[in-house]
Amino acid sequence: MTVNRLIYLPLGGAGEIGMNAYVYGYGPANKERLILVDMGVTFPDMDSTPGVDLILPDMTWLEENLDRLEAIFITHAHEDHIGALGHLWPRLQKPVYARRFTATVGRLKFEEQGLPIEAINIVAARPETVEVGPFNVQFVPVSHSIPESAALVIDTPAGRIVHSGDFKLDRSPVVGEPWDDARFAEIAAERPVKALMCDSTNVFSLHPGRSESSIREPIRDLVAGRGGLVVATTFASNVARLKTLAEAAKAADRSVCLMGRAMKRMVAAAEQSGVLTDFPRTVSPEDAADIPRGNLMLIVTGSQGERRAASAQLSRGKYLGMEMKAGDLFLFSSKTIPGNERDVLRIMNNFSEMGVDVMDDGGGKYHVSGHANRPDLEHVHRLLLPDMLIPMHGEHRHLREHARIGAEAGLAAAVVTNGMIVDLTGETPVTVGHVETGRLYLDGSAIVGALDGVIRDRIRMALNGHVMVTVILDDDNSVLGEAWVETMGLAERGRSGILAEVMEGELTEFLDGAGRKILADDDKLDEALRRIVRQVGMEEIGKKPEVTVVVSRLMAE
Amino acid sequence: MTVNRLIYLPLGGAGEIGMNAYVYGYGPANKERLILVDMGVTFPDMDSTPGVDLILPDMTWLEENLDRLEAIFITHAHEDHIGALGHLWPRLQKPVYARRFTATVGRLKFEEQGLPIEAINIVAARPETVEVGPFNVQFVPVSHSIPESAALVIDTPAGRIVHSGDFKLDRSPVVGEPWDDARFAEIAAERPVKALMCDSTNVFSLHPGRSESSIREPIRDLVAGRGGLVVATTFASNVARLKTLAEAAKAADRSVCLMGRAMKRMVAAAEQSGVLTDFPRTVSPEDAADIPRGNLMLIVTGSQGERRAASAQLSRGKYLGMEMKAGDLFLFSSKTIPGNERDVLRIMNNFSEMGVDVMDDGGGKYHVSGHANRPDLEHVHRLLLPDMLIPMHGEHRHLREHARIGAEAGLAAAVVTNGMIVDLTGETPVTVGHVETGRLYLDGSAIVGALDGVIRDRIRMALNGHVMVTVILDDDNSVLGEAWVETMGLAERGRSGILAEVMEGELTEFLDGAGRKILADDDKLDEALRRIVRQVGMEEIGKKPEVTVVVSRLMAE
Repeated sequence: MTVNRLIYLPLGGAGEIGMNAYVYGYGPANKERLILVDMGVTFPDMDSTPGVDLILPDMTWLEENLDRLEAIFITHAHEDHIGALGHLWPRLQKPVYARRFTATVGRLKFEEQGLPIEAINIVAARPETVEVGPFNVQFVPVSHSIPESAALVIDTPAGRIVHSGDFKLDRSPVVGEPWDDARFAEIAAERPVKALMCDSTNVFSLHPGRSESSIREPIRDLVAGRGGLVVATTFASNVARLKTLAEAAKAADRSVCLMGRAMKRMVAAAEQSGVLTDFPRTVSPEDAADIPRGNLMLIVTGSQGERRAASAQLSRGKYLGMEMKAGDLFLFSSKTIPGNERDVLRIMNNFSEMGVDVMDDGGGKYHVSGHANRPDLEHVHRLLLPDMLIPMHGEHRHLREHARIGAEAGLAAAVVTNGMIVDLTGETPVTVGHVETGRLYLDGSAIVGALDGVIRDRIRMALNGHVMVTVILDDDNSVLGEAWVETMGLAERGRSGILAEVMEGELTEFLDGAGRKILADDDKLDEALRRIVRQVGMEEIGKKPEVTVVVSRLMAE
Repeated sequence: MTVNRLIYLPLGGAGEIGMNAYVYGYGPANKERLILVDMGVTFPDMDSTPGVDLILPDMTWLEENLDRLEAIFITHAHEDHIGALGHLWPRLQKPVYARRFTATVGRLKFEEQGLPIEAINIVAARPETVEVGPFNVQFVPVSHSIPESAALVIDTPAGRIVHSGDFKLDRSPVVGEPWDDARFAEIAAERPVKALMCDSTNVFSLHPGRSESSIREPIRDLVAGRGGLVVATTFASNVARLKTLAEAAKAADRSVCLMGRAMKRMVAAAEQSGVLTDFPRTVSPEDAADIPRGNLMLIVTGSQGERRAASAQLSRGKYLGMEMKAGDLFLFSSKTIPGNERDVLRIMNNFSEMGVDVMDDGGGKYHVSGHANRPDLEHVHRLLLPDMLIPMHGEHRHLREHARIGAEAGLAAAVVTNGMIVDLTGETPVTVGHVETGRLYLDGSAIVGALDGVIRDRIRMALNGHVMVTVILDDDNSVLGEAWVETMGLAERGRSGILAEVMEGELTEFLDGAGRKILADDDKLDEALRRIVRQVGMEEIGKKPEVTVVVSRLMAE
């Protein structure tokens, strides 16, 4: 008799915030039929991934088991859940399922990449059910900071799983469906929940979360009290916030102008998919130029300080013909994601130099989070009463804390991180295997592996500088001319003179005295020259540079 | 008749947090006699200064006016006030004045650099007065997060200036002198204060600051409630905090072991200079290994996540024979400076994986700031009632806000940033000039200018990768062999093959067809080859790399 099992395998998102990609499987061991939930990206930084455009989950394991993969489900249209779809779908080529708004955003990505948009299927909310292999999957509306976020109810012969997606308990979310306790109570009443995979982002926030609608009045009051130009920034995908901001503008007799490509695209997608019906009319940047500053609000991209986005550009001068002046207001209706502080502060200080008043989230007055806080998570645990709780969407410390509070409440909770295969068939989660996971870097138009050494070399050049040595030998292994050194990213002068010249001197001296054995051996010669360069670097400027040696051997013709 | 004037000129620290260096002058215009207050550093980051060891203020202006400089005063021993002394003093060679603890730290730096320690003079607190040129300078004890921090009273024929240094209003600071209102009231009563140059770091903190002693009990309770090993980190120079932590250990029957060079050095300097007399006895790391974990507390460096410091090393495994285990406690008795979040979070997550419980400042339970908050600043304004308020030690947004609240209270307040010369002789500050200021980078043992292009080249290599092209020509301008390409930090394969090979193919094709005019002209050839490499880079991998071209011309012998 074949024993079927139900497995869970995160490929991204479990042990990090970003790059969500979760696999569920059902069937005989190692032959389970599979579905993938979410295909997200995470964002590079100069410290660890200089020059990289996007970071994608490494799905090699899934590619190697492609014949087992039934379908891909996308819970919502945030980049950390959908961002890799356009880049990695060509490697999977399986049907994609999402709610209308999410699918609209996904199809825009597919169009840009020349991929077949019909691969993305639009699914209505539960009770509509997608049947793929042994899985019956329903999309359950939840509130979040983007329209039509969904939890998934995943039914299998081994039991019901609830995959929370990203959510908050917002009963008046301004745009989209409110959180509905009854909906989730019904899910648990209909069939016991075997396992809850649950968003952990805000597990360290101890107060109950606040509704999007709670910041409407503060923002309206803030805008109403201002003369001059008002500019606000938030995440482009936070359509409810855009609406809140636009309505505050309207109430203060200000026309609204959306700036930044992502912002316009999101509003268009929201209107196209029907989730946004009454957004105040906007004006174009060209028309905005003719409107008195006191009657205008710009809503712009770049809340995280991104250097090319509208916020940063406005802080440096003109953007699309608009310019900020003393007495204007710039509102960050957003929180700064850890790691982006320096970039955001740079913008704030630029504005300060212009005399622009900057407001940030005001301790929660002008921004609320899109994730469930600890009491909210505990509320959901109680609503669903799952046998098992598996925290996801968090760094290790979030997962651990979330598991801890689950265990305290009597749930079989486990910390499961990327690459762990966990068997959910029994009463508690059991780790049954481990697969290699990792990161891919979209770098220009190329995709390189995190361990390929490409980015490591960039970091080394950035830390240590780079020295190039050129030596030419004839077919008799005699050195022609002298060693030539070019440096990049290093002090020009060292203790005893021009750095490149000191290196050339030492290299030439070495070559003059070097025996045949070394001169004839590319590897030995390379190593010897490299060592001299690093040694001179240390003596002259206290640094050991990266070295590239080019030995050219000219053959008699 | 010669008209003398009193001027203020920040060379660092005004418009940034870090790198403090303030000049005061008195005398005929452009012939003022000068003093320098503080010589601080700021710290590099991968985004803007990869590979750099320290950032120093560019004091070229002072070096050009060296005959006018009387002396250097150091307010306290934090690196952003004293860190450049060992590196830049050789360019100034003027007497240095500081209180005993600060001088002790300074002399340690001088010893390391082989500089004459007798150049650093120890000054007692007011009423002791240093007379240099037209200046009479007194050190006034203030409380801060390091022993013997001082404000300066600077008397000139044109009036009295109070330079606040870094301070907080701590009436029970655990180590060192408490803040004393009477001391400052007396200063103002003795002679009216013409101008107050005032710390602005915490101007956005709206509640009154809390005393160092307020966290004694919470820390004691936290430590008392733990089994297993307890490890705590804070700034090495926060001697009061070290004492608080060590006393909490003692109360819980734990021996204390200090780890990290800076930590031991600071405690030694504090004991040597007499400010620390009753620090609990510590054990060495070797002895610590024999003590039961439940009877031991380590106090370690690396509160900002510095990769080579003790905290980071413990989070990766063993450090000096010690290792953390599940159930141990790691306490960040510190706040994370903006920009360091990612490094600190990495440590927290590493510990989470080990099962170590991590506590951070606990919303102020286990850490207090060393700077005066807004109500405290306003209190000091009222105590001293200066004619003018010039905020210092802050980013632009801090200076602007501080000036705003000063102006609201009726003071002549001005935002003065690095490089501005401000005349304080009259009733309000008047900008009378501007000097070039900037940053120097200590890079290994070399000092390079921020605008030298060295670091810009490193950043470019890190973002774009680096391609080296070697071409050899004979004295007839014929190409010998073929173009040779080495790449570093770039994807190995492009759209149509191995990237280096595709580049070599295109370069060789170009060289085969190139006319004499180009082949004979180094600049033209360089430019043409560079353009081809960048174009191929764009087509093959969507990136334009940095390019170094080496054209070797072999002459007939």
